[in-house]
Amino acid sequence: MSTDVLELALLRRLAAGFRRSPLQLNAHQESDAELVRLPGHHGVLALTTDGLAEEIETGLYDDPYRIGWMAVLVNASDLAAVGAEPIGILITETLPSGLSDDFLARLQAGIADACKACHLPVLGGDTNFAARLQLGGTAVGWISDGQAVTRRGAAPGDRLYASGPLGAGSAFAFMQLRARAGAPARVPPYQPQPRLREGRLVRHYASCAMDTSDGALATLDQLARINGVGFTMAEPEERWLHADAAAVAAAAKLPTWMLLAGPHGEFELIFTVPPGRESEFLAAAAAEAWAPVALGVATAALEIRVPRGAELVTLDTGRIRNLFTVSGSDPGRYLEELWQEDRRCATAPAGEVTS
Amino acid sequence: MSTDVLELALLRRLAAGFRRSPLQLNAHQESDAELVRLPGHHGVLALTTDGLAEEIETGLYDDPYRIGWMAVLVNASDLAAVGAEPIGILITETLPSGLSDDFLARLQAGIADACKACHLPVLGGDTNFAARLQLGGTAVGWISDGQAVTRRGAAPGDRLYASGPLGAGSAFAFMQLRARAGAPARVPPYQPQPRLREGRLVRHYASCAMDTSDGALATLDQLARINGVGFTMAEPEERWLHADAAAVAAAAKLPTWMLLAGPHGEFELIFTVPPGRESEFLAAAAAEAWAPVALGVATAALEIRVPRGAELVTLDTGRIRNLFTVSGSDPGRYLEELWQEDRRCATAPAGEVTS
Repeated sequence: MSTDVLELALLRRLAAGFRRSPLQLNAHQESDAELVRLPGHHGVLALTTDGLAEEIETGLYDDPYRIGWMAVLVNASDLAAVGAEPIGILITETLPSGLSDDFLARLQAGIADACKACHLPVLGGDTNFAARLQLGGTAVGWISDGQAVTRRGAAPGDRLYASGPLGAGSAFAFMQLRARAGAPARVPPYQPQPRLREGRLVRHYASCAMDTSDGALATLDQLARINGVGFTMAEPEERWLHADAAAVAAAAKLPTWMLLAGPHGEFELIFTVPPGRESEFLAAAAAEAWAPVALGVATAALEIRVPRGAELVTLDTGRIRNLFTVSGSDPGRYLEELWQEDRRCATAPAGEVTS
Repeated sequence: MSTDVLELALLRRLAAGFRRSPLQLNAHQESDAELVRLPGHHGVLALTTDGLAEEIETGLYDDPYRIGWMAVLVNASDLAAVGAEPIGILITETLPSGLSDDFLARLQAGIADACKACHLPVLGGDTNFAARLQLGGTAVGWISDGQAVTRRGAAPGDRLYASGPLGAGSAFAFMQLRARAGAPARVPPYQPQPRLREGRLVRHYASCAMDTSDGALATLDQLARINGVGFTMAEPEERWLHADAAAVAAAAKLPTWMLLAGPHGEFELIFTVPPGRESEFLAAAAAEAWAPVALGVATAALEIRVPRGAELVTLDTGRIRNLFTVSGSDPGRYLEELWQEDRRCATAPAGEVTS
């Protein structure tokens, strides 16, 4: 459908020599958390491991409380995407010598608060000492009836939803990196909330689900590849664009689709619901005082279509996923590449696949 | 009993603000793997996360195959120490740009081979990119009857055993760091083998167990602290000292106890068996063609006593555990400190607690 994703090719290559487990339910890359049946049980374990390295190294996260919070949240988000009950988390800390007591205390407070918010008690972990700070975790969840939702299962016509408004991850990253570069910038707040409760509801109705840890467009691209469908975000952007993203787009004169493009996500869930189950799903969500955000629809055409001004344009989301790598992780060059994509999609005839 | 351990104090401080899970069976630091009961089940999950950072940064591990092998083995060893069935492993790789294809292929081959040897299929993982290579894993095991062995449970009079001969970790580290410093050195081979099979047998007979990931003396010190006992390695060292360790001690004119002291372990299990179960245990081991290595006995006196020439001496194992940190991770200074401890224990009156 669109350009190959460099990262996926590397991950496939790294995993090529590894044996798979007969107990594992999901194929490679087809679930946010690994799903493993325990011998002789109906229940399924959900396991995920995720860490922060680039986010710290680039200065995107420089506040120790945020680093601690996010190390937990990124893992909780993967459990949410499969609809698991949280069991606990293991925390891995690589600490440079010479961290101040205050920095360390705020780091640990961020971890502790996120664990409380996510109902993920700290089961244990590993502490190392090295030149650079790194933080990661492994979260464990449990699905007692074994019925997880994965990235696979969407069909054309399924309704496309998000657990909350989109674009806050890119809005934060754009302003934070601008501020770090010394430019005047009002950095919006950024503290994604756990979507575990929403995920447990979603799994009973959704045909597929995935979190937006790498940004909304990367999620749509990945779900499209796995399911052999496209997505059209036909709903007006006022309904799904986060207020901070709208403000950053206006202030920096960016097309709003760029706020879905950045590799720093907002940690919402994106999922599809078969049309026959939509009203039942919305009623169940309303009963929990949750209003899912409608985005659009899954299509038979293998395209990702998003609003650009008054039009719907087709984006080469595979190419967009590669841009941060291709531009050597340089924010300025990355933005130039996005503008190039903007010109490309604006001039492409409607409905044409761009590569 | 002996000097406080700096690392334990830091770990306690880091964990102070974290909530514990009511499902977790083991207290902080009292099990090699975290033991978690699943809601509504008899079985117990064993979870452990461990990584390689210092080992790579110091050059102790410079062979990519060894790095891959050890990233799996360190985690398998924790599962072995609680007697769990291996379920699978998540692998976390932090890769610097510019790794050669050959290096990467050998790294992945080390992981794949160790996973096969440990019966730990790769369930998934996380790949990051940063300036320095780091490798880690999270292993998951299962104890269907819920009867794990932990670090707690030893009583005076219990027999002290190891799963294999001791000292190979220190022997390798001593010669490898000497070779890295440009001195002539015959570096012994080092590829610890999984002890999962032994661990599953041990858990039915042992009162406590722990692996020697940080060296045998650190293990004895930790087990002594938790259980309020001491240990006397009364068995002649010919019976338990690894041949490579004996050779390095002879070549470098080191007292053999120093080959138990280094923080780089041999990844055997050390465990205690109540005297009333010893013959049954040895018969079960013999039936599996395994000969456990007798070390000595647990004592009411809170001392760690080891052979030094023809004598038994009391070591301040708490102090010894701190020496690598205290000497700024400098191998030369560390060795000087060990020699100081050797003079100290040689002149201390027999039976006296050294601090």
